[in-house]
Amino acid sequence: MRYLSFEADDGLRLGAVVDDQVIDIGAAVPDAPASMKDLIRAGSEFESGLRARLAEAAAPRLPLSQCRLAPPIADASKFICLGLNYADHAKEGGFALPEYPALFLRAPSSLIGPGQPMLVPSCSERLDYEAELVIVIGKRCRHVSEDAALDVVFGYTAFNDGSIRDYQRRTAQWTAGKNFDATGALGPWIVTADAVPPGASGLGIRTRLNGRTMQDSTTDRMIFPVARTIAILSEIMTLEPGDLIATGTPEGVGHARTPPVWMRPGDEVTVEIDRIGALTNPVAAEAPAAQAVA
Amino acid sequence: MRYLSFEADDGLRLGAVVDDQVIDIGAAVPDAPASMKDLIRAGSEFESGLRARLAEAAAPRLPLSQCRLAPPIADASKFICLGLNYADHAKEGGFALPEYPALFLRAPSSLIGPGQPMLVPSCSERLDYEAELVIVIGKRCRHVSEDAALDVVFGYTAFNDGSIRDYQRRTAQWTAGKNFDATGALGPWIVTADAVPPGASGLGIRTRLNGRTMQDSTTDRMIFPVARTIAILSEIMTLEPGDLIATGTPEGVGHARTPPVWMRPGDEVTVEIDRIGALTNPVAAEAPAAQAVA
Repeated sequence: MRYLSFEADDGLRLGAVVDDQVIDIGAAVPDAPASMKDLIRAGSEFESGLRARLAEAAAPRLPLSQCRLAPPIADASKFICLGLNYADHAKEGGFALPEYPALFLRAPSSLIGPGQPMLVPSCSERLDYEAELVIVIGKRCRHVSEDAALDVVFGYTAFNDGSIRDYQRRTAQWTAGKNFDATGALGPWIVTADAVPPGASGLGIRTRLNGRTMQDSTTDRMIFPVARTIAILSEIMTLEPGDLIATGTPEGVGHARTPPVWMRPGDEVTVEIDRIGALTNPVAAEAPAAQAVA
Repeated sequence: MRYLSFEADDGLRLGAVVDDQVIDIGAAVPDAPASMKDLIRAGSEFESGLRARLAEAAAPRLPLSQCRLAPPIADASKFICLGLNYADHAKEGGFALPEYPALFLRAPSSLIGPGQPMLVPSCSERLDYEAELVIVIGKRCRHVSEDAALDVVFGYTAFNDGSIRDYQRRTAQWTAGKNFDATGALGPWIVTADAVPPGASGLGIRTRLNGRTMQDSTTDRMIFPVARTIAILSEIMTLEPGDLIATGTPEGVGHARTPPVWMRPGDEVTVEIDRIGALTNPVAAEAPAAQAVA
């Protein structure tokens, strides 16, 4: 099943994708959860029942192409990102292979949905793409063993971990370069775990920039696969329903090329993961930097 | 004015501290905001009016000592932390003086309130304290100049940026060691900006561990003072009402001592900032690590 968040006149709504149409879940099932996090919190039994009710419901379906999609989850209690989780990407960046995941967090203010512009900020031209598989946590958990880890997964989505490279390397901590406004594209939807192989392994993952393939790998090349990642992270912290874990990017990023490739206003970038979907965003320049206080 | 969050039978409540008593704001002013974030979002004019109404209100006051305090804000959209913002602390850790702030983020799952135990995790004994001044953002803003930066500050609080040092240095990214459950103590309350010098400068900041002074500095020794920090961060991202910015710790941390000092179950640690207050927490061992899935 594929679930998405879309913008309606009265705010965000939850949708289910069937072929190239979207069922407005709130309209089809009156007591349905209002948000993706609420849906996830309702649990897997509820979600199974919801599928059956949606199949029977006579609610109007909207053409997917006419829905303005939002990030499937924009209010995760945390969005944890792994760096250097593919060997060839660690190598191209000049880093040693990690024996433990290099972690950083992304703030909600950095996220955008499918189709929304990724912004080249006014202070830097070095906006780079990174195709990533994202784990969506389904159950509150701590100290989960690798064997049991896939049981806490609700589903998966795609991420373009847009990075401002000069700010990323301005200090040893990457957080600044990973948190510019409107640089992290998430979506297009969440695919439930049952629709992909266990741990989302063996899926092709690609980036295309203006139609040209820039990254092309498979998720089974991760150094820390999905179950291992969850086990490691849950040793540190309680994972909550709706928490997001980006699992790192394969080789082929722009800054490691000669000459470097930066995304520029007018470009179009697509992150695509087999069985999950394609996440496409235009690239635009940030409006001239003007002080804004609300 | 001092505002805090406290636990009541029906959930979290917002309080105002007057001497050693707490006014339950919801009981005193029926249409008052329910949470600290709502209070901050309501704006400075509302907050000024609230003070006047609280002064007139005949609501019962609770003894401060009997209130179970929570983190003043536990659901910030982001909690940004600066590392190495005091020269002598950078030096004791073997780091060069930063020319740009080293940033990381803390997840809500790592936070606790005053009086709640800081946990030594089952996988490490290396829990260290760090006294920090925290800026509480009052207005949504981006690209704020240093000159205008103090206008977006709602107030200040204290933070014990509890760090699991072996995990912090397991990779170049500090995020893991800064995000263990129940290691970051925040509070005891938020002091509004008008109650401290501009930019909270020149305030003594100390840590006492079991009564012994371990850190003792002043906030005017920050490399990136409050206004400069806000200007730098708002170049990267939109700051939202209730966002938290921890401004780094002075020298004297446990891991830099010979021999190192780690906090142990049974200890009591206090972070104290002049004009703001004292944040005291016991230290306890995490319950034996058992897999927990809800």
